[in-house]
Amino acid sequence: MDFDRPLPDDLKTAVEFHGHLCPGLVLGYIAAKEAMKAMDVIRAEDEELVAIVENDSCAADAIQVITGCTFGKGNFIFHDVGKQVYTLLSRKTRQGVRLVLKRDIRKPKKPDGSTDRPAFIHQLLNGQIIDFFNSTRIETELPPLARIFDNAVCDNCGEEVMLPRVREKNGRKLCSPCFDAQTSPA
Amino acid sequence: MDFDRPLPDDLKTAVEFHGHLCPGLVLGYIAAKEAMKAMDVIRAEDEELVAIVENDSCAADAIQVITGCTFGKGNFIFHDVGKQVYTLLSRKTRQGVRLVLKRDIRKPKKPDGSTDRPAFIHQLLNGQIIDFFNSTRIETELPPLARIFDNAVCDNCGEEVMLPRVREKNGRKLCSPCFDAQTSPA
Repeated sequence: MDFDRPLPDDLKTAVEFHGHLCPGLVLGYIAAKEAMKAMDVIRAEDEELVAIVENDSCAADAIQVITGCTFGKGNFIFHDVGKQVYTLLSRKTRQGVRLVLKRDIRKPKKPDGSTDRPAFIHQLLNGQIIDFFNSTRIETELPPLARIFDNAVCDNCGEEVMLPRVREKNGRKLCSPCFDAQTSPA
Repeated sequence: MDFDRPLPDDLKTAVEFHGHLCPGLVLGYIAAKEAMKAMDVIRAEDEELVAIVENDSCAADAIQVITGCTFGKGNFIFHDVGKQVYTLLSRKTRQGVRLVLKRDIRKPKKPDGSTDRPAFIHQLLNGQIIDFFNSTRIETELPPLARIFDNAVCDNCGEEVMLPRVREKNGRKLCSPCFDAQTSPA
């Protein structure tokens, strides 16, 4: 796809992570850039920032790549409420921004009425970031930092389980799948 | 940190995504490489592969980067059971491998008894992949492909919500947070 300017390097990185370029990824990219600019922060090396995503669409991958809030680092939180809403917070200040995708974005259409995805990407990349999101400053409680727990061994399957996920039944320590299997109706 | 050989390029990519090098990330890297080698598959550009992770530790970030099974693409599934277990599946064959971290791995210790993390990373990177995981071939049902849904507008907050997450109360269409707020005890 051709655009009026080459893709920015950090968007290229997001495309490589996600596996392909699509409108959702670009929306997430724009949200992440806008939030970080508004908060004047750099990418989180560890857990300096916390992202809350309210959907699990392609946009979430750009949020991970650009903000450094990643699933495996404990600072990427998924609220499964189905909204195009992205919140970024600083652990230091407990402040941040909540970005809500505007309702009146006109997606370019193909003759059959479906979204013209390349044209939509073009529109996103050549528009002004503030054209797409409503932004609100917020301050909130933050989730605790990620922790590492010791393990126990499941008395049924023999696999190791971190202590907070161990469940007991009749004096036996079980992992959740073994616990559930032993309590299901016959 | 110095190792007997430079970090592989794909591990460097994982480190850049995660934000830092740590033992958990390297464990996830080793699991991903081992699973892909056993299945003879390449990184998922779209949803060709499905990963199931049984914890949300640093390892999950390497799984995302190396396998291409990412949170935002719908082919990264989190089973919150607290196990160092990683499953990779092919959508084409519904077959794959389940890797379980061995229980008898001796982590190098510091004089105070805590894990010597640099030495542990060194051990992981210089060991044989098969030293760390027990691998089982599996065949299973796969989750449906990711879908895009139309939106409705929440009658309370005015934000858009994807249709499967809309909840009704007294004839009003609400997002989950507004629904919950209106049903909480006063």
